[in-house]
Amino acid sequence: MKIESLNNIKVKEWIKLQEKKYRDINKEFLIEGDHLLNEALKVNRVKEIISTDEAFKKEGIPFYLVTSGIIKKISKQVSGTNVIAVVKKSTNDKIEGNVCLLDNIQDPGNLGTIIRSALAFNIKTIILSNETVDLYNDKVIRASEGMLFKLNFRRDKLEDVIKELKENNYNIYGTNVKNGNKLKDISFKEKSAIIIGNEGKGMRKELEDKCDFLINIPISDNCESLNASVAASIIFYEMNRKI
Amino acid sequence: MKIESLNNIKVKEWIKLQEKKYRDINKEFLIEGDHLLNEALKVNRVKEIISTDEAFKKEGIPFYLVTSGIIKKISKQVSGTNVIAVVKKSTNDKIEGNVCLLDNIQDPGNLGTIIRSALAFNIKTIILSNETVDLYNDKVIRASEGMLFKLNFRRDKLEDVIKELKENNYNIYGTNVKNGNKLKDISFKEKSAIIIGNEGKGMRKELEDKCDFLINIPISDNCESLNASVAASIIFYEMNRKI
Repeated sequence: MKIESLNNIKVKEWIKLQEKKYRDINKEFLIEGDHLLNEALKVNRVKEIISTDEAFKKEGIPFYLVTSGIIKKISKQVSGTNVIAVVKKSTNDKIEGNVCLLDNIQDPGNLGTIIRSALAFNIKTIILSNETVDLYNDKVIRASEGMLFKLNFRRDKLEDVIKELKENNYNIYGTNVKNGNKLKDISFKEKSAIIIGNEGKGMRKELEDKCDFLINIPISDNCESLNASVAASIIFYEMNRKI
Repeated sequence: MKIESLNNIKVKEWIKLQEKKYRDINKEFLIEGDHLLNEALKVNRVKEIISTDEAFKKEGIPFYLVTSGIIKKISKQVSGTNVIAVVKKSTNDKIEGNVCLLDNIQDPGNLGTIIRSALAFNIKTIILSNETVDLYNDKVIRASEGMLFKLNFRRDKLEDVIKELKENNYNIYGTNVKNGNKLKDISFKEKSAIIIGNEGKGMRKELEDKCDFLINIPISDNCESLNASVAASIIFYEMNRKI
C-alpha cells in the first residue's frame, strides 16, 4: 500500500531524522540515492527503504512505497532522488589501525572528504571531538561517498583518547604551520594517530603539547593556508606512502 | 546618499551579476565579505564597493551605501555579509610557470579548492576546459579563499592548449587510475602541466593520448576514488616536493 499523506506517522518519523536531536535519540539516520543505499546494504545496517519505485525492494528489509511528494519532503538534496533509507548508526567505536582525530571540524563537506581520504589511505578509526560537526549530517554522508560505512568512529574528548592511544603505543602527530617539521621529513610508524585542527583556528594549543611530532606542509608564501580536508588528505597520503 | 529601493537601477545591475550570462557580458563579478574585498583591492580590480557601513569606503573607488535588505538581495551567502564588491575579471591569460588543466570540473567547491591548492604549491596558470564550471560562480570564489586573484586563467579547448604547451617544452601529466604510474615514482620538471579530469568520469581518453606521463595515486582497494580536488592537491604537493 502506497503512503500518500504527509500526516502519516512513518513520514513524520522520517522527517524528524533530518534533525540531529532525533538522529541521536533513535541512533538512526537517513541516506539518499542508490549508491549510498548499496554501500549501507553491504554492511547490513539498513532498517527501512522508502521509495517511489518498488524496484528498490530488498528481501528482509521493510519497504515503504511513497509518493514523490513525500520523498521530496524527506530529502535534503536539491537535485532530487527516488530512494531514501533509514540506516542504523554504527556501534563500532574500537580503536584499530591508524587513527585520525578531528579537533572541531565544522564544515560538513570537509568532514565527508576527510572520511573518504582516510579510507583511501588506510586509516581505520576516526575520532571526532565533541565540537565537530555531526557525522550523520546529510552533507557529510554525501561528501564521504558512503565511505563512512567502512570506518570505526568515536565521538569523545580528544585529551582522553590521546591518553588511551599513548597507552597503546601510538605516535601522536599534530599539525602546526609555524613550528612543525616539514611533512616530507616526518617518519611514520605502524601505529600513527594524526590530529587535524579546525578550519580557521587550527589545532588547539592544549593538544599540541601532547603530540610526539608536529607537522607542517610547506606552501608558497603567497598562500595563507590549505583547505582542512586537503591538508588532512596530503598527510594521510604521505603517511601511507611511507609505512 | 543611501540607496533604499530594490528598483534602483544600480541594484538591478548588481543582482544581474548573480547570473553567468551577465558576468560574461560585463566582464565583472561579485565578491562578498571583507577578506575577499581585501584580496581584490591588493590587485586593483575593485570597481565598486557596496555596503551598509561607510567604514568600507576606499579612496578612488565608487562607494554605495545601501540598506541591509539590498545587501541580502545581492548576496548569495546564507550567513549574511555587510560588504559586497563588483570586481573586474582578470585579463591575464598568459601561460606562465607550472600549469594545471581542468577537463570538465563540475563542482564549484572543487574548482575553488583546486585554485587554492594550486597557488599553495606554486602553480601559476590554470586552464579551464569550455565545459568546466564558471570561475566567477560565488561558490568557486568562496572556496578559493580569494586565491583566484593571484593566478592566470584561460578558458579554452584543452587540445589547443596542450599543443601550445608542447611547443613551449612543457611535460604533460595526466591522471589514470588503471594505467598510470605511481605518483611517488613520477619525476617532474620545471615546466610541468597537469591535467585533472571530471569528478565522475575522469580525464577524457582523447587527452590521455597526448600525455607524456600518466599518474596514478595508489589507494586502498576498499575505496573507489578520491575527491577530485584532493587528487589534484596531492599531485600538486608531490610535484612541488620534487621540483
